[in-house]
Amino acid sequence: MAGNTFGQIFRITTFGESHGEAIGVIIDGCPAQLDIDLDYIQSELDKRKPGQSKITTQRKEADTVKILSGVFEGKTTGTPIAMIIPNEDQRSKDYSHNTDVFRPSHADYTYHSKYGIRDHRGGGRSSARETAARVAAGAVAKLMLKAKGIEVIAHVSSVGKIDAPNVDISNPQAFIEEREKNIVRCVDPATAEEMIEKIDSIRKQGDTIGGKVTCFITNCPVGLGEPVFDKLHADLGKAMLSINAVHGFEYGSGFEGSEMQGSEHNDLFVNTGDQIRTLTNYSGGIQGGISNGMPINFKVAFKPVATIMTNQQTVDANGDAAEIQGKGRHDPCVVPRAVPIVEAMAALVIADHYLRNKSAIL
Amino acid sequence: MAGNTFGQIFRITTFGESHGEAIGVIIDGCPAQLDIDLDYIQSELDKRKPGQSKITTQRKEADTVKILSGVFEGKTTGTPIAMIIPNEDQRSKDYSHNTDVFRPSHADYTYHSKYGIRDHRGGGRSSARETAARVAAGAVAKLMLKAKGIEVIAHVSSVGKIDAPNVDISNPQAFIEEREKNIVRCVDPATAEEMIEKIDSIRKQGDTIGGKVTCFITNCPVGLGEPVFDKLHADLGKAMLSINAVHGFEYGSGFEGSEMQGSEHNDLFVNTGDQIRTLTNYSGGIQGGISNGMPINFKVAFKPVATIMTNQQTVDANGDAAEIQGKGRHDPCVVPRAVPIVEAMAALVIADHYLRNKSAIL
Amino acid sequence: MAGNTFGQIFRITTFGESHGEAIGVIIDGCPAQLDIDLDYIQSELDKRKPGQSKITTQRKEADTVKILSGVFEGKTTGTPIAMIIPNEDQRSKDYSHNTDVFRPSHADYTYHSKYGIRDHRGGGRSSARETAARVAAGAVAKLMLKAKGIEVIAHVSSVGKIDAPNVDISNPQAFIEEREKNIVRCVDPATAEEMIEKIDSIRKQGDTIGGKVTCFITNCPVGLGEPVFDKLHADLGKAMLSINAVHGFEYGSGFEGSEMQGSEHNDLFVNTGDQIRTLTNYSGGIQGGISNGMPINFKVAFKPVATIMTNQQTVDANGDAAEIQGKGRHDPCVVPRAVPIVEAMAALVIADHYLRNKSAIL
Amino acid sequence: MAGNTFGQIFRITTFGESHGEAIGVIIDGCPAQLDIDLDYIQSELDKRKPGQSKITTQRKEADTVKILSGVFEGKTTGTPIAMIIPNEDQRSKDYSHNTDVFRPSHADYTYHSKYGIRDHRGGGRSSARETAARVAAGAVAKLMLKAKGIEVIAHVSSVGKIDAPNVDISNPQAFIEEREKNIVRCVDPATAEEMIEKIDSIRKQGDTIGGKVTCFITNCPVGLGEPVFDKLHADLGKAMLSINAVHGFEYGSGFEGSEMQGSEHNDLFVNTGDQIRTLTNYSGGIQGGISNGMPINFKVAFKPVATIMTNQQTVDANGDAAEIQGKGRHDPCVVPRAVPIVEAMAALVIADHYLRNKSAIL
Repeated sequence: MAGNTFGQIFRITTFGESHGEAIGVIIDGCPAQLDIDLDYIQSELDKRKPGQSKITTQRKEADTVKILSGVFEGKTTGTPIAMIIPNEDQRSKDYSHNTDVFRPSHADYTYHSKYGIRDHRGGGRSSARETAARVAAGAVAKLMLKAKGIEVIAHVSSVGKIDAPNVDISNPQAFIEEREKNIVRCVDPATAEEMIEKIDSIRKQGDTIGGKVTCFITNCPVGLGEPVFDKLHADLGKAMLSINAVHGFEYGSGFEGSEMQGSEHNDLFVNTGDQIRTLTNYSGGIQGGISNGMPINFKVAFKPVATIMTNQQTVDANGDAAEIQGKGRHDPCVVPRAVPIVEAMAALVIADHYLRNKSAIL
Repeated sequence: MAGNTFGQIFRITTFGESHGEAIGVIIDGCPAQLDIDLDYIQSELDKRKPGQSKITTQRKEADTVKILSGVFEGKTTGTPIAMIIPNEDQRSKDYSHNTDVFRPSHADYTYHSKYGIRDHRGGGRSSARETAARVAAGAVAKLMLKAKGIEVIAHVSSVGKIDAPNVDISNPQAFIEEREKNIVRCVDPATAEEMIEKIDSIRKQGDTIGGKVTCFITNCPVGLGEPVFDKLHADLGKAMLSINAVHGFEYGSGFEGSEMQGSEHNDLFVNTGDQIRTLTNYSGGIQGGISNGMPINFKVAFKPVATIMTNQQTVDANGDAAEIQGKGRHDPCVVPRAVPIVEAMAALVIADHYLRNKSAIL
Repeated sequence: MAGNTFGQIFRITTFGESHGEAIGVIIDGCPAQLDIDLDYIQSELDKRKPGQSKITTQRKEADTVKILSGVFEGKTTGTPIAMIIPNEDQRSKDYSHNTDVFRPSHADYTYHSKYGIRDHRGGGRSSARETAARVAAGAVAKLMLKAKGIEVIAHVSSVGKIDAPNVDISNPQAFIEEREKNIVRCVDPATAEEMIEKIDSIRKQGDTIGGKVTCFITNCPVGLGEPVFDKLHADLGKAMLSINAVHGFEYGSGFEGSEMQGSEHNDLFVNTGDQIRTLTNYSGGIQGGISNGMPINFKVAFKPVATIMTNQQTVDANGDAAEIQGKGRHDPCVVPRAVPIVEAMAALVIADHYLRNKSAIL
Repeated sequence: MAGNTFGQIFRITTFGESHGEAIGVIIDGCPAQLDIDLDYIQSELDKRKPGQSKITTQRKEADTVKILSGVFEGKTTGTPIAMIIPNEDQRSKDYSHNTDVFRPSHADYTYHSKYGIRDHRGGGRSSARETAARVAAGAVAKLMLKAKGIEVIAHVSSVGKIDAPNVDISNPQAFIEEREKNIVRCVDPATAEEMIEKIDSIRKQGDTIGGKVTCFITNCPVGLGEPVFDKLHADLGKAMLSINAVHGFEYGSGFEGSEMQGSEHNDLFVNTGDQIRTLTNYSGGIQGGISNGMPINFKVAFKPVATIMTNQQTVDANGDAAEIQGKGRHDPCVVPRAVPIVEAMAALVIADHYLRNKSAIL
């Protein structure tokens, strides 16, 4: 009820503050007998970790994950999988000046108002560090989906006003390889270069910039998603909107679709022999809240990071006017590190609905 | 788990098919001693009902709601409130030709694939008729919120490419009165006229068009929303994305915010004497997933209605090619009737989080 | 959260007060394509309905169930199944004298204290009438279990100090036929006669008496139940303890088992060729919270009905001393009518865990 | 859904196997600003830990708890409280002979059948070691309840056929002090002596014996519990039945109540000036599922421990006949160590319903 749990059958609960002892996650409901590749889980975390390139925060954290339970001789046993990631680089003093001052567009003021107390160090629970736990859990979900041939792949499709063209998703492995060739994680190399330049220039100004991540789910079977409140795209939307800094979500035709007419927007069915498909995919692979076998696609909008290197007017815990000074080590743009988080959350949703769908028919 | 329930404490479960006996809803968790104004609930349903103007479907349904339980001598008792809306105008024969043919961009194919069976009449459970139950429940949530001074108000902000300018929300009652003066439910009269003309022209073509609804929550107290997965905007997003035909959700700066820089996007705090406020509201009234006392605002994108009056190629349940003919009575544009649905779902989310927040501090 | 919902995947939500418009239930999560036999559901309700014999209350209620949704051409569609039972014999005036006086050992005082308001007519929501909705839902669960060969059978094993001997459960159909031959619903005819005499004598005194119901689940597959909190017997226990007037639950060796030694209590495994079985069944068919393929058995203790025909001292809503007079039409002993309720709740638990177990292995 | 979570608002999720890295728990939903006394939590764990006396298992485990999150400068912050207890004395080789052989009346066979894989070392997830995590979480719940004056106190009321007389609960602190004076944790000293002798004699035979724990909740406010499925005693019952080895639960008059008549069983209300009370307490402090302000009392029956020191016939994973030899270090009787577990689970239920009750009235 306090909302640190996500999912119904494949269900995760995360814990931890950015400057506490550790963060972590319990996965409850992962089926038994699944092979767990710890190196794969760690490699996903490495894509999210700070300090990986010049366009991310320079904080250095190894983010080494450790499995405490639920895996026996390399396989899941059906019992809860607990994973922890110890906090290492806890330079709390960087934050000591912020104790009583509310940083603009951060969660300081709302936490303080809600609970009357907060761990102010580095954002505490509201720090995006919490998402490392999601990435670890999402990696397990991906392993489960891979066992069924389902792939979840995302990349940076926009930085500020720089947009990538449509990209080829026919080979998920090639998609990921191409993406990992550049530090901004955009599959299109020319756009990637432009984006990196932009972020670097923003960073030098002590400023930050927003961006978008586009995600695809390929080879998803027909039938995932529930018809009314738990539509597949509603759960994907909630998953994405629960990620720090996300301000928008659209799937299929999205916001542009609201400007179209039915005669152009309808996806006509055809039987290709192998499969019933649609000629277009404005539905984004989901109709009536249920996957239709076409590739699922959606886009997630991230606001610019709130921590900037310039001084800003604000108030403190007494309500008095105060000035906050830009310090600490932060990302000029979150989207490169957000890619594995988007994938993780999407994988958790799909894994959950995959299991939920087992009860559609007796 | 089959996803016909929404909310944690203020929790609704809906049931019913468009051409069955009745649709309805159970509200579980509404606090006791709340005054229930049945006329108000009915008036909300009247805003959603079909046949209300020339730009909505011409189907006629009274959509008369009846309370079966949970209210005693005009007040809630803390027990479940069951409400039913009998189905009246069930011209099932309009749909008999669709029995085995999958309508493009409808839920026919996915339901059929998921369950191996479906009530094909008028969309069955996937019909937007289900949302009448949500509007009834949402009206109760609104009554609860009104008792605390919180108002939820929405209007049509776009039809196709026609966008309304920013509107004044300082007087929620005036907002609603102005909106109800025109059949498209846009608060700006000039834009409303343009929108109505557009929809009428689209209707004459036998086509449909998408649009957007913008919603505001005024006088929301600080502290609603949970920090991690159940962020207030994540639950609002899921609520909106669970409405038929919705393809996108954004709050505060939304998708545009992803093109901005931190230095322009940050909302600076000021103490106005009465209250801590922000100078701008790119945060949309929510920071770190928790309401900050500023007006909450979000936008919802609806795709064009899939039922059009022209013939379309498709496949049938055997996978054979088929042609579907546009028949039935449908909306050329859903947004005028979607306004009360958006408000209802928003009210349900806020009511739920209002009650959840009671446990933040002992 | 207000607790009118039971189950995780096969999930029911009930509503209704004893003297309101109707009571009812929504089943969410029943798999599609299940044959629904409305006569069977009604016949289960008939076993619970008042006025069926001289040893039950003389109130007459037809308790006719009506399905509003979720069933199409005789089969479930995977959408919510709503069922209502209109209230008919609402002699509210029988209760008018109780408006402000708290009946001893009823829920009047606690409801009043919790909500500050209550529908006092006939117990309102706390009336055992609510269990009719459970019986209707349980009948659907039984139909689902029967499709898998699983049977849930119960009978009255004690009335006051009169205990039935062990009974034969090898033929569930014969068990039920034998049980329905007498009005107390005890499978052993000699004990049944004694019980009926006892209840009739208690009734003539204007008094009431408690009793016990024993329930068996036969042909339950191995593997149902979850290891830790949702042990199969824990969910069965909660289900039974949620029935009005239940004060105790035990399974397998139960309370007597706590007086035994391990060397006599352990159930040794043998392989019979067909199946791994245990030589004894002190485990009651459940080990480590998970069904082991042996018959499941448990016992439920019901207190005597609180409404008696003699005057009793109490207090009223002002806290003043008052006298309550025994009026109304009530059961001298609930167990004959409790048998279908116990079966219904057990069936709901088993159906839910049957579906939950589908996710144990991918 | 896999059932490692308990509670709705004050909600715990446990993890860990007996011979894995660690066991632990996340508490989600504990209100902010609560003082956390780590010594108190540890002292509760010490009452459960093995090796504490001659009548418990001789395994030695320090069971030292560590808080990873959710507590800042000694107070809860409203974020998840993660606690871990590293596993220390993992003599896995004691269990190596059991790898493929199903121990009678253990969970080996059912786990193996359900998941097709299991961590066989020391029972793995089915080990009662999991309850240490519950005791840690329960200690936090107790701290929350103590802040409101509510006390949860239990003691051993039976070992085999040795029953303690009724005990005085008017001073909870004195109750606990008296109980902790003897190693069997029975408040009555004479009975305690008899019980200890009995257990010691059983231990010398290499056998085990069952027993009962009685629990009281004092100073519980009126109004906790939900009317229908989540009756306070139904949730207490489920909590108790989820503890390893529990076979029965009763509250108030319990099983004996089913032999009584209404005229003797009804609890008459009186106004004592301070408070509305009942003259007797057959209701066990709960009426209609809701606390009535009287002391809550219930009893829990534990079967004898399944591990005994004699050889037993069984089958192995191939279904072949096998003999199991009694080895390892186990408890001759679980009830002395079960007392803190019963208290912990009861405290979790009461804490949860305390918070749930905040929404009964707006």
